[in-house]
Amino acid sequence: MNDNLTLAQLAEQLGADLRMAPGTSPELVLTGLNTLQDAGPTELSFLASANYRRFLVDTRAAAVLVTEEMAEACPVSALVVPNPYHAFALATAVYDRTPTVPVGVHPAATVHPDAVVDPKASIAAGAVIEAHARIDAGAVVGPNSVVGEGSLIGAGTRLHANVTVYHGCAIGSDCILHSHAVIGADGFGFAPRGGQWTKIHQLGGVEIGDEVEVGACTCIDRGALGNTVIGRGVKIDNQVQIAHNVQIGDYSAIAACSAVAGSATIGKHCTIAGGAGVVGHVTVADKTHVTAMTLVTKSIDTAGSYSSGTPFSDSRSWRRSAVRFAQLDDMARRLRDLEKQLANATTGSGESD
Amino acid sequence: MNDNLTLAQLAEQLGADLRMAPGTSPELVLTGLNTLQDAGPTELSFLASANYRRFLVDTRAAAVLVTEEMAEACPVSALVVPNPYHAFALATAVYDRTPTVPVGVHPAATVHPDAVVDPKASIAAGAVIEAHARIDAGAVVGPNSVVGEGSLIGAGTRLHANVTVYHGCAIGSDCILHSHAVIGADGFGFAPRGGQWTKIHQLGGVEIGDEVEVGACTCIDRGALGNTVIGRGVKIDNQVQIAHNVQIGDYSAIAACSAVAGSATIGKHCTIAGGAGVVGHVTVADKTHVTAMTLVTKSIDTAGSYSSGTPFSDSRSWRRSAVRFAQLDDMARRLRDLEKQLANATTGSGESD
Amino acid sequence: MNDNLTLAQLAEQLGADLRMAPGTSPELVLTGLNTLQDAGPTELSFLASANYRRFLVDTRAAAVLVTEEMAEACPVSALVVPNPYHAFALATAVYDRTPTVPVGVHPAATVHPDAVVDPKASIAAGAVIEAHARIDAGAVVGPNSVVGEGSLIGAGTRLHANVTVYHGCAIGSDCILHSHAVIGADGFGFAPRGGQWTKIHQLGGVEIGDEVEVGACTCIDRGALGNTVIGRGVKIDNQVQIAHNVQIGDYSAIAACSAVAGSATIGKHCTIAGGAGVVGHVTVADKTHVTAMTLVTKSIDTAGSYSSGTPFSDSRSWRRSAVRFAQLDDMARRLRDLEKQLANATTGSGESD
Repeated sequence: MNDNLTLAQLAEQLGADLRMAPGTSPELVLTGLNTLQDAGPTELSFLASANYRRFLVDTRAAAVLVTEEMAEACPVSALVVPNPYHAFALATAVYDRTPTVPVGVHPAATVHPDAVVDPKASIAAGAVIEAHARIDAGAVVGPNSVVGEGSLIGAGTRLHANVTVYHGCAIGSDCILHSHAVIGADGFGFAPRGGQWTKIHQLGGVEIGDEVEVGACTCIDRGALGNTVIGRGVKIDNQVQIAHNVQIGDYSAIAACSAVAGSATIGKHCTIAGGAGVVGHVTVADKTHVTAMTLVTKSIDTAGSYSSGTPFSDSRSWRRSAVRFAQLDDMARRLRDLEKQLANATTGSGESD
Repeated sequence: MNDNLTLAQLAEQLGADLRMAPGTSPELVLTGLNTLQDAGPTELSFLASANYRRFLVDTRAAAVLVTEEMAEACPVSALVVPNPYHAFALATAVYDRTPTVPVGVHPAATVHPDAVVDPKASIAAGAVIEAHARIDAGAVVGPNSVVGEGSLIGAGTRLHANVTVYHGCAIGSDCILHSHAVIGADGFGFAPRGGQWTKIHQLGGVEIGDEVEVGACTCIDRGALGNTVIGRGVKIDNQVQIAHNVQIGDYSAIAACSAVAGSATIGKHCTIAGGAGVVGHVTVADKTHVTAMTLVTKSIDTAGSYSSGTPFSDSRSWRRSAVRFAQLDDMARRLRDLEKQLANATTGSGESD
Repeated sequence: MNDNLTLAQLAEQLGADLRMAPGTSPELVLTGLNTLQDAGPTELSFLASANYRRFLVDTRAAAVLVTEEMAEACPVSALVVPNPYHAFALATAVYDRTPTVPVGVHPAATVHPDAVVDPKASIAAGAVIEAHARIDAGAVVGPNSVVGEGSLIGAGTRLHANVTVYHGCAIGSDCILHSHAVIGADGFGFAPRGGQWTKIHQLGGVEIGDEVEVGACTCIDRGALGNTVIGRGVKIDNQVQIAHNVQIGDYSAIAACSAVAGSATIGKHCTIAGGAGVVGHVTVADKTHVTAMTLVTKSIDTAGSYSSGTPFSDSRSWRRSAVRFAQLDDMARRLRDLEKQLANATTGSGESD
């Protein structure tokens, strides 16, 4: 992190075409990023969507990331780029203050003698690395995180504080696992017999691709037989549940509080909104979008957007509709009866004419 | 905690008017609290709602917290107060056996030399306090909890075991954070480009007011730009997800498994029941109530109760209604057609008369 | 674990009738378990359901667990058992590679001098055992797990890494608690007064029966007065929320992301699918099944399957139905009007005949 960049330096770093407003200097040192409304005279802002164009005219930002089309409308200096939102994302890396962790093993960490920790990895206080685990160069295991026997943490991957990785899991490189994420807990498998449950020990593991982000308190269970597999570049929000033997295709994104049940296969480039559920053993096509709190109960063969549920309203209105929901089949039958009666009546009336 | 109070002492402490039943003594030492049905002869009970009045007559409690109106109906000694449920809440503090933690830093804790820990704070075994964090007087950091760089834990605030507070977060005084709560993990922000996701580093923090309670496994993400803000006296249950840049107004309460998406603003004195969702960027008016498992998809301008979903029933009946749900638009059009036909028929019939 | 069993040895262990295919040897050493489709020539498979019968004919497995009825159709050696799925569950125990933990207290654990740890228990690095806690023989407390004051961990029970058990909780024998499970956090109880909330200290504890499994990030809150009780043999998946004073009957199973609100009573042998909710203070009959994402808002007196929600569909179709949902009461009234009109019209028309 170098957060003392001048406007000119940042423009260069972002590959932006810098167009200075009259009387301003490209040598201005930027102090950070902000929205068009809140940015001050040493901050960079961005116009990511036409919806926010109305805020452009009054912005006090030092400069704004804009497209060529918007450059002229920019009242302050402009950093012209093809995709301002993407350029903004790149700029956030410059100002990220997430603390780095010193390389090496903290004296208050516990590393099993049979674990392999790269000298360029960081193991924080309270972390526990079990036998035969391997922590690659540049990886960070945060305070009180635990890496189980034989598991692999790829190069450059960061486990924040209090992450748990069970035994026999492989996490790719350049991943981020947020606090209290749990990788490799047992899938929920039991065979019923005589009203009781016999545990199906979960013999598989978890494989996570490179550049995956896993949110806080998100659980990815180990497979029953074979592995649970998370593709490359997948982004998973907080409190998501990924059950045993699920497969998530590359670059899919799953928002908070969603759940994917056992052996379901989610395609590539899917986006699943918050609180959604996918039942077990189904397949969801690439590029599918599922809206918030939708329950997907069958396979989806065609990309598109899918929903379930009802609209919200004031509870009194809602109750009136809800009561009728239980009468729907009766209503449909009565509607059909009316149609028949009316058809008969009309015919009869026609005849009587 | 002094849990050897006599009836008279507890009455005084609660500001109650003690009315002894014949042949009983105000010097009776109380052993605890219980419901009207289960309380024994050394326990205090309470009548919080007229619904439970039927249990009053048979109670074996030593005494009962009641309103003036109910005092006469009380067959045992009465502690007359304006608000028995509130008095009961105050009484629970007397009998709380949550262990205290000795003041000072446990030898098995890891405190960075640049952290500032008040001599009257308690840091338990396995806790990790990062550089420039500040732990104020009377604060408790439980076993294996982690406080990130530069974060502040206010006076009298307790982090139970295994809590994680990331860097750059400020938690007020007299808060309670339950185990596995996560404060300040990255918000879920990515800019799409060419089918992949570029991380938007989350540059803001989290600000939590005084007297806030945060449930187990609840996540409050840091802001993208600017802070996520939880107002004073807010109560949040377990497994709640608060996304980046959400604002929760003072004294609102959010029940378990609910989620508030990014940049939503919840007013003051709101109550959100379990499993509810609020989508991003909306505003919810003060004093709004949202019922369980409701999805709020638009801003709510007027206080009131709001709901979505359908009633539950046996699955067979439900399936009959559910099938018709998908036919609703067709049913509505056919209904309209029937109305037109009937109007025509009636008119026609009228003409033919 | 002895995972070098021969086919004959495993058959004996499972009580199976071994019927060798021509030219094969019962002395073959098995290397593991797999599905019919994926099993190789040294792996055992199983046919648990007629649905998978089509995969039997082409299996390359060394042998297959089958019923008597299916034995003849098995192209490889057969292990004939009455219940192949149950036998498969038993076989998974043989191949489970979950690491064992050495007996004794790891030097990096912190055990309070007033705690009682059986010499045959295992306390891992970073674990914290508070005063008066009792850890019985064969119990395992995983890395960075915390057992609170006076709590009991029964014989043979395993807490994986980063589990938290608060004070005053009792966990039976032969249980499994997955990482980041939280037992005994405060229930969500507050008395409102003047727009603010007064905490109701949670004075009860948690009692968990024998052979219970608790998933990752699952929370079971302590009781307000009296205990929250989980019956024998109950299986709870990840991210489940069990509120204060809930009672779960023996051998019930609750899938991921479900929630049971305060003082609800779930019967024995119930199965609750993922994402379901049960509101507070209701009773659910033994052997009830609740489907995924259903909200149970009233007591269920009769065993059966219960559902709520709407079917999912493409969002465009769904929106058409959803809009009509809000018009349902109006539609029902208009339908009734049409019925009346038509009845009148028909009668009128009859009269005019």
